[in-house]
Amino acid sequence: MNESEIIHNALEEDLGASWKDVSVEALGSVGDNSSTSKVIVKEAGIVCGLWLIDEVIKKVMMVCGKGEFSHLFSVECYFSDGEFVEPGSVIAEIDCPVGIILSAERTILNFLQRLSGIATLTKKFVVAVSHTKCKILDTRKTAPGLRCLDKLATKFGGALNHRFGLYDMVMLKDNHIKAMDGNIKKAVEQTRMIVGPTKKIEVETSTFEEVKAAVGSGADMVMLDNMSIELMKKCVAWVKGRVPLEASGGINLENAGKVADTGVDYISVGEITHSPKALDISLKIVS
Amino acid sequence: MNESEIIHNALEEDLGASWKDVSVEALGSVGDNSSTSKVIVKEAGIVCGLWLIDEVIKKVMMVCGKGEFSHLFSVECYFSDGEFVEPGSVIAEIDCPVGIILSAERTILNFLQRLSGIATLTKKFVVAVSHTKCKILDTRKTAPGLRCLDKLATKFGGALNHRFGLYDMVMLKDNHIKAMDGNIKKAVEQTRMIVGPTKKIEVETSTFEEVKAAVGSGADMVMLDNMSIELMKKCVAWVKGRVPLEASGGINLENAGKVADTGVDYISVGEITHSPKALDISLKIVS
Amino acid sequence: MNESEIIHNALEEDLGASWKDVSVEALGSVGDNSSTSKVIVKEAGIVCGLWLIDEVIKKVMMVCGKGEFSHLFSVECYFSDGEFVEPGSVIAEIDCPVGIILSAERTILNFLQRLSGIATLTKKFVVAVSHTKCKILDTRKTAPGLRCLDKLATKFGGALNHRFGLYDMVMLKDNHIKAMDGNIKKAVEQTRMIVGPTKKIEVETSTFEEVKAAVGSGADMVMLDNMSIELMKKCVAWVKGRVPLEASGGINLENAGKVADTGVDYISVGEITHSPKALDISLKIVS
Amino acid sequence: MNESEIIHNALEEDLGASWKDVSVEALGSVGDNSSTSKVIVKEAGIVCGLWLIDEVIKKVMMVCGKGEFSHLFSVECYFSDGEFVEPGSVIAEIDCPVGIILSAERTILNFLQRLSGIATLTKKFVVAVSHTKCKILDTRKTAPGLRCLDKLATKFGGALNHRFGLYDMVMLKDNHIKAMDGNIKKAVEQTRMIVGPTKKIEVETSTFEEVKAAVGSGADMVMLDNMSIELMKKCVAWVKGRVPLEASGGINLENAGKVADTGVDYISVGEITHSPKALDISLKIVS
Amino acid sequence: MNESEIIHNALEEDLGASWKDVSVEALGSVGDNSSTSKVIVKEAGIVCGLWLIDEVIKKVMMVCGKGEFSHLFSVECYFSDGEFVEPGSVIAEIDCPVGIILSAERTILNFLQRLSGIATLTKKFVVAVSHTKCKILDTRKTAPGLRCLDKLATKFGGALNHRFGLYDMVMLKDNHIKAMDGNIKKAVEQTRMIVGPTKKIEVETSTFEEVKAAVGSGADMVMLDNMSIELMKKCVAWVKGRVPLEASGGINLENAGKVADTGVDYISVGEITHSPKALDISLKIVS
Amino acid sequence: MNESEIIHNALEEDLGASWKDVSVEALGSVGDNSSTSKVIVKEAGIVCGLWLIDEVIKKVMMVCGKGEFSHLFSVECYFSDGEFVEPGSVIAEIDCPVGIILSAERTILNFLQRLSGIATLTKKFVVAVSHTKCKILDTRKTAPGLRCLDKLATKFGGALNHRFGLYDMVMLKDNHIKAMDGNIKKAVEQTRMIVGPTKKIEVETSTFEEVKAAVGSGADMVMLDNMSIELMKKCVAWVKGRVPLEASGGINLENAGKVADTGVDYISVGEITHSPKALDISLKIVS
Repeated sequence: MNESEIIHNALEEDLGASWKDVSVEALGSVGDNSSTSKVIVKEAGIVCGLWLIDEVIKKVMMVCGKGEFSHLFSVECYFSDGEFVEPGSVIAEIDCPVGIILSAERTILNFLQRLSGIATLTKKFVVAVSHTKCKILDTRKTAPGLRCLDKLATKFGGALNHRFGLYDMVMLKDNHIKAMDGNIKKAVEQTRMIVGPTKKIEVETSTFEEVKAAVGSGADMVMLDNMSIELMKKCVAWVKGRVPLEASGGINLENAGKVADTGVDYISVGEITHSPKALDISLKIVS
Repeated sequence: MNESEIIHNALEEDLGASWKDVSVEALGSVGDNSSTSKVIVKEAGIVCGLWLIDEVIKKVMMVCGKGEFSHLFSVECYFSDGEFVEPGSVIAEIDCPVGIILSAERTILNFLQRLSGIATLTKKFVVAVSHTKCKILDTRKTAPGLRCLDKLATKFGGALNHRFGLYDMVMLKDNHIKAMDGNIKKAVEQTRMIVGPTKKIEVETSTFEEVKAAVGSGADMVMLDNMSIELMKKCVAWVKGRVPLEASGGINLENAGKVADTGVDYISVGEITHSPKALDISLKIVS
Repeated sequence: MNESEIIHNALEEDLGASWKDVSVEALGSVGDNSSTSKVIVKEAGIVCGLWLIDEVIKKVMMVCGKGEFSHLFSVECYFSDGEFVEPGSVIAEIDCPVGIILSAERTILNFLQRLSGIATLTKKFVVAVSHTKCKILDTRKTAPGLRCLDKLATKFGGALNHRFGLYDMVMLKDNHIKAMDGNIKKAVEQTRMIVGPTKKIEVETSTFEEVKAAVGSGADMVMLDNMSIELMKKCVAWVKGRVPLEASGGINLENAGKVADTGVDYISVGEITHSPKALDISLKIVS
Repeated sequence: MNESEIIHNALEEDLGASWKDVSVEALGSVGDNSSTSKVIVKEAGIVCGLWLIDEVIKKVMMVCGKGEFSHLFSVECYFSDGEFVEPGSVIAEIDCPVGIILSAERTILNFLQRLSGIATLTKKFVVAVSHTKCKILDTRKTAPGLRCLDKLATKFGGALNHRFGLYDMVMLKDNHIKAMDGNIKKAVEQTRMIVGPTKKIEVETSTFEEVKAAVGSGADMVMLDNMSIELMKKCVAWVKGRVPLEASGGINLENAGKVADTGVDYISVGEITHSPKALDISLKIVS
Repeated sequence: MNESEIIHNALEEDLGASWKDVSVEALGSVGDNSSTSKVIVKEAGIVCGLWLIDEVIKKVMMVCGKGEFSHLFSVECYFSDGEFVEPGSVIAEIDCPVGIILSAERTILNFLQRLSGIATLTKKFVVAVSHTKCKILDTRKTAPGLRCLDKLATKFGGALNHRFGLYDMVMLKDNHIKAMDGNIKKAVEQTRMIVGPTKKIEVETSTFEEVKAAVGSGADMVMLDNMSIELMKKCVAWVKGRVPLEASGGINLENAGKVADTGVDYISVGEITHSPKALDISLKIVS
Repeated sequence: MNESEIIHNALEEDLGASWKDVSVEALGSVGDNSSTSKVIVKEAGIVCGLWLIDEVIKKVMMVCGKGEFSHLFSVECYFSDGEFVEPGSVIAEIDCPVGIILSAERTILNFLQRLSGIATLTKKFVVAVSHTKCKILDTRKTAPGLRCLDKLATKFGGALNHRFGLYDMVMLKDNHIKAMDGNIKKAVEQTRMIVGPTKKIEVETSTFEEVKAAVGSGADMVMLDNMSIELMKKCVAWVKGRVPLEASGGINLENAGKVADTGVDYISVGEITHSPKALDISLKIVS
């Protein structure tokens, strides 16, 4: 699903199979009157999703057969995606037929609040490791159907994207390696022969021996899964930058800095997409 | 979107446009071997989403052209959706070709963790008001594209569903009423004439006067929006059960019990769907 | 399906899998010449569907790759949907490339004739009960795939909409109640606990006892199914307006007035959507 | 759209965006109990659409996640599509979980009633011309989105199908010919060069001269549009069977026999698909 | 599938489930800069597909959310589809944001190269029979999913289209006839009764006796399948133009002229769509 | 699009918007009789696509409502995909209702012929370089909409897959690098910062200097575009295996061996997917 399909589905589940807002229907022709609304962030955070306001409203106008009122529609954003905002900030102003904004309001806010929540939490992790050269990575622990938006939000929060799915990178976990006779080197070589030269291969490890085997196997990246701080340090020292190392498993805002201090290149964090707190944002029709 | 489409989309974003898992591809024919996995809940909570395990795996088998291996597939669930589980509980056991479970694992867990997180948080609110006859309602503040599942999860957590979208109930907010000349009674009557007799009409109020007007208007339900405890008590006393009252706005686990003590019939809570913490659940291939 | 999808499907079945009109293809570049057409109603009735002319032609221009000829396209409507027209009335005039109007003609007329036929028949029922305060309701007996349009047409004919589907209102028929132990009160209460407070519950009754039970059960609306005029009068007298009453079953243009005289609030009529006679409308290319 | 998509759309508009029947939901697990229903035709007619019963119910079971109850499901039909039935006939018996039949009932009946209505009306026209060798043809005046089913119904009523859409046969009407300089012979030849040898070309005529020109042009079929009985007779006599003749325009049950007496090969009738009266059919759950 | 859907699918398989070009992403905002590109044909041939350039780029701009850069976009074509071009010819010039043309380039060329390859090969067959009145027909041996474009390309190469699919013409092969008791006349008559008068019926024959039977059966067209030159001549002489004859089977550029010399009306060639050599075309960003 | 959607689209374009085969319709109930067919390869080559036979026929049975005849259906394959076959080999035998195989035949053959043609041509390139350790790679020059199948076929022919699309690997061509100030090292570093660590970055080069810059930039792979044999040798000697080298541009069966002799790791060939000759395969109903 691309953005356009995600928005379509979000609106369809709100407007129903026949795409109608019965409350707006009650307004009759008054729903076509112009209106001005402000989008207000009520707590400090990183704002994300502003570009979607325009797309949501355009799609509502289209499916509600209000294309002829497009001259009443404009959006002005006062912040950029990824920017920090203080509580009370007006981040956007929307001119729009009143019936349209009433129908679009909840969908716009559902997007903005989730994505800003992700960006805000991501930024906290980025700050927690900013005294090192370690980067934060996201994971595939995203809300089903929202992966491409969730991963845009982590980027606006300052993280880098890990693989998008099972299709664009190989990750050999213990179960994969076990299924290929348990030999890491053989597993990586077999993989390369099958997937060709254009996909990166990462190997998941949990012991020093596995790390040594993985580095020697020709893997492009090695994941240190649920290791102690000491073990990670030992691995970093031995690997000496020959291959990027990713720490993973049980990392939270409290221990992220210490994990970064071990010298790993990347820390991947599931929490930023599976448990973000929605940023408090509201929409107020002011005239 | 129905469940089947939601699962399809979740798998498509993980498997990509050509539906392939390059890590499983590397396994070759070994991926067709049988395997047994356990789904383990690692923290206390209400489990929700178990019925989706079967559907996700069946769809993966189908899209990966592994239908002929269906004799290797079975799921046994040891708990029911909505049940409380202790940390460490094995909630399900899955027999399945190893390549299939590796491709399906993350999608299964993304569903289970979100839905169980919603059910668990909902249950906390339900418990917080359980000394009264007040019921918890969900809202439309759901993850875009997941409304029907999010609302199933709140139900398994003990809440009742508020409207599903803009199509199945009328909610007249201040902006609707303002647009209809500000007269609540007139607005409700006009609405009834337009939407017919089969849709309920709820009116949002923030003052005692508005509550009185709403009750007198023929509305089917009245929302008390962001009112103080005292004001809510006053409204409850005046309304005397003639119409159901719903408290809304700024209600959290700390104040929910007190709000319920005012005698309102319902409390609606956005947090249970917009900011649930994922329940920690993992899948372990045991053989 | 929303309107846009309904139009898409109607055009696809006419233009085929590859979207081509072989008769227009034969015209070659002449098909791009401008033309003017008149839409003429040939018998008296209520016109409905005028807004679709614009949408059908735009979609044909788009799928036929004729977007660059949009400057040749305009529609002027001389009547509004829901208005009464005399035989011979020109209801719209269309300027359009001649190839486009030839491809769009039948689809436009199929919509206009069905919807105007529904509105016209509906209006006859509305007139038949207009000496009372009784309102006409439509039903779910619509042409498969056309529900949202069919129900718009009944509205333009002066009726109110009954529920749109199985999702936006509860209707407990004898079979539902039987399945819940035959106790109406218990059935309504169990329903309320499951579907929450936002959906209306209607109970179907066929005897005086059932009506009494239904009114006492907390149902929001009661259907009097296939009752005699006398029984309906008795029910109306006993209910005294505590809950809206809907007469249903075997009601036609001849007896509708008498049914309305019983004092019921609503009469629902399947015939207006399952057996409308198409209004005779044609399109004439005049230059 | 094929049959499967038409059924999907019909169910989606009835079950809504999240595919739920709130009345059946109220039944809880009782909805999974077995039941037996009879489908009863209440007036004489030609039955059509019986094969859809099975498909509708299977799709409901699938989308409602009730696949595991398929052992409770069977349909037995006591008549064949196209057969004449007396009032009161039980045409099918359905065993099915009670919740499923309650959700599927209206959709099944909407299909059966429309298609049987079409077949019944078609048969009347077929009978009206049965003393001649003239055949009844349908037209493209079908309900938008239902063409393939409507045209199956006319066949079961004894008619032959005219073209399915604009893609599978050329029809040159006066406007097409005018656009190609008004010369019928030239128009037909130009058309043949463009559409190739595999599509039939029919020419619409309204005067004797046009018929002569059309027959001489190499057209595969000639339509006599809105001609008088006398003119049709003259044309038939002159054409002498060199090319099939189709009478069209303003033909109803009263004059169809006389039109057939002129010796035309085919009569096309829009009424059978644009204005059929639904056959009265009901479904009764008997246990 | 219509053209728009074909383009959508082609872009989706190139841009992936989330519609992203990671190479263009690396450009950052530089990707929005204007650019000019030339489309250059590197070998002599018939160009085909030019109209798709505009559609591909517009769709890329839309799905990549770059609609606001549409003022940077224009296409100028220096040749028409179906025209012969010399090696080195610039056939089109494209102004476009550089990121968009980089994302669209391969898809544009994949279309242009295949369609021009088809048109070029078709033209060779057309030339090979141009000393006769025989016409070249295409077949259903097209690339799956590309039939409507492949058949447009054969037309631009000078061929006529055979049937588009199994739906718009009847072709009775030996297996059909065998299944209908082996009697050609009976088979054609039965077919006519079932499919109605609007579809052409072609009969496949391989012996002189079959040709005689087919011509006498009322078939609209007769295929001479894999016959020798002598046998075809004999058939042509006997048929005397009463029905069009199509030669088919094993016809290549070397023998096409001789087959045409037999006097058959049409020659159908699978090779032009199942084995065209892509025309060498490239795109060069010049500024 | 996954395989299932590709097959659906291929069948839809052949069976049309209403999914009907008018020739099979003419058979009436005879079409449901059993039949046995042989799939015969008529020239030597690598067979590919056998697994699709089953899927195509199952889908035809489903869309034609012939599921109840599934007991008449089975496929036996006598070769495996990727195997070499001699002319005249029977590669599969199909038992199936005769109407179904008649409707499915052309679609099955269109798939088999294209994919086997690709595999056969690929194998020739693989053989041409088999005296070296060089591997053949495919490209994105595939038939629009068929990429995933075309790339499966090259694999069965012995090649490895290059990137699937623009989403799973970065390829920096001269235009990308120019747009990033022309500095290869800077371009690669900027790219890594934006796309994260999980995607490979390949740099296209055409001079020795560019190769040196690319190797020093941290690129994962370097493409030698349209270089002379001598220059490629020089590059191979200098790079000394630090990074994989891919030769590309103007490589055909005649020069592929010599290019491989230069010591490059990979040769990518567009011809194997943009201009394969269909392998001659036919289907014969034998009883």
